[in-house]
Amino acid sequence: MMKNFTKEELLNSESGFRRDFVNSLSGYKSLNLIGTKNKAGISNLSPFSQVFHIGASPPLVGILFRPHTVERHTLENILATEYFTLNHVHESFYKQAHQTAASYKESEFVATGLNEVYKNDFFAPFVENSPVQLACKLVETQTLQVNGTVLVIASIEEVCVDSKGLRTDGSLDLEALGTVTVSGLDEYYVGKRLAKLSYPKPGKDLEVLI
Amino acid sequence: MMKNFTKEELLNSESGFRRDFVNSLSGYKSLNLIGTKNKAGISNLSPFSQVFHIGASPPLVGILFRPHTVERHTLENILATEYFTLNHVHESFYKQAHQTAASYKESEFVATGLNEVYKNDFFAPFVENSPVQLACKLVETQTLQVNGTVLVIASIEEVCVDSKGLRTDGSLDLEALGTVTVSGLDEYYVGKRLAKLSYPKPGKDLEVLI
Repeated sequence: MMKNFTKEELLNSESGFRRDFVNSLSGYKSLNLIGTKNKAGISNLSPFSQVFHIGASPPLVGILFRPHTVERHTLENILATEYFTLNHVHESFYKQAHQTAASYKESEFVATGLNEVYKNDFFAPFVENSPVQLACKLVETQTLQVNGTVLVIASIEEVCVDSKGLRTDGSLDLEALGTVTVSGLDEYYVGKRLAKLSYPKPGKDLEVLI
Repeated sequence: MMKNFTKEELLNSESGFRRDFVNSLSGYKSLNLIGTKNKAGISNLSPFSQVFHIGASPPLVGILFRPHTVERHTLENILATEYFTLNHVHESFYKQAHQTAASYKESEFVATGLNEVYKNDFFAPFVENSPVQLACKLVETQTLQVNGTVLVIASIEEVCVDSKGLRTDGSLDLEALGTVTVSGLDEYYVGKRLAKLSYPKPGKDLEVLI
């Protein structure tokens, strides 16, 4: 049975209900830990579900930052230093990843027991044992007039990926990598593959590639 | 074993490898079919993996459109008519959802056998049997200088959700809804829940809520 909500009903609903409901509407979201360091050398780690593909040539990634949220340190560090990392969350540490969203005065690495690692003189810290790690550099930011959301666009400077999940065609096997996905603000899932499908063409049957 | 790719190695890699690799890097992505209709009354349906949360009060959603891609009709219809729908893909029709990306002259509803339905005089078509259906209205667009990607921001005017996946706190049970997620351009998954976790606070152990 379908249940309907008009915009007016949503605006008049209890704020916690509205927040959880609207945050769930887009479906499964990518989950990444963003690692940064401020100019005083203090590292920061925070979970983000609003990371998306902007382009492949050159490799670009986009992140949406809500205005005035707990993730403010991350955005400030990126604006001040230009560097950050994106790290897939593996199912072995998704609870620690969730805990990094708590409001700590110290580094979230220290607070949650996730290990920070540095590679190839890159300024920002990576998360040890993350199956996909990206070194990113700020390119531009845009602020959305509608509600002050900040869009950060960054270039992908380097990628480290667990080879057990990298196929020869370039695609990643997220199931093999143990990558976690998130729904809403606090619900975590791993994926169960249905299929990898062939390129769709009119009048041609799809093939299951994997 | 971790495998490293520098930006230069990615830029020098074979274009198909680079496209599939970079498209996979953000992890699991939300999957929605966007339903539109042009001013001549011809409906259109196309899969999108770049739909995200912009705000809850008022409820706003964002979509990134790549420049010069096969999804051009969708963007043109939204700009011309201001209305569109977002529809979660259920596992029972993910192959048809993939097939809507083929280059058809006719409506993708007709071509793939997915049924279009109209509700409450809303201009754009919904996908029958989709477990989460959103009626959306264009608010603003921004073009990203960096590569011409177009960001569409829209208000959520109405939501229809299968009640078996709606919890009393407002969150959605995506596993119960049968919602599909996508990796890269062509690989489909359903989710297997790890847990819904309590709000994170310093010094407090997380509780598994579900």
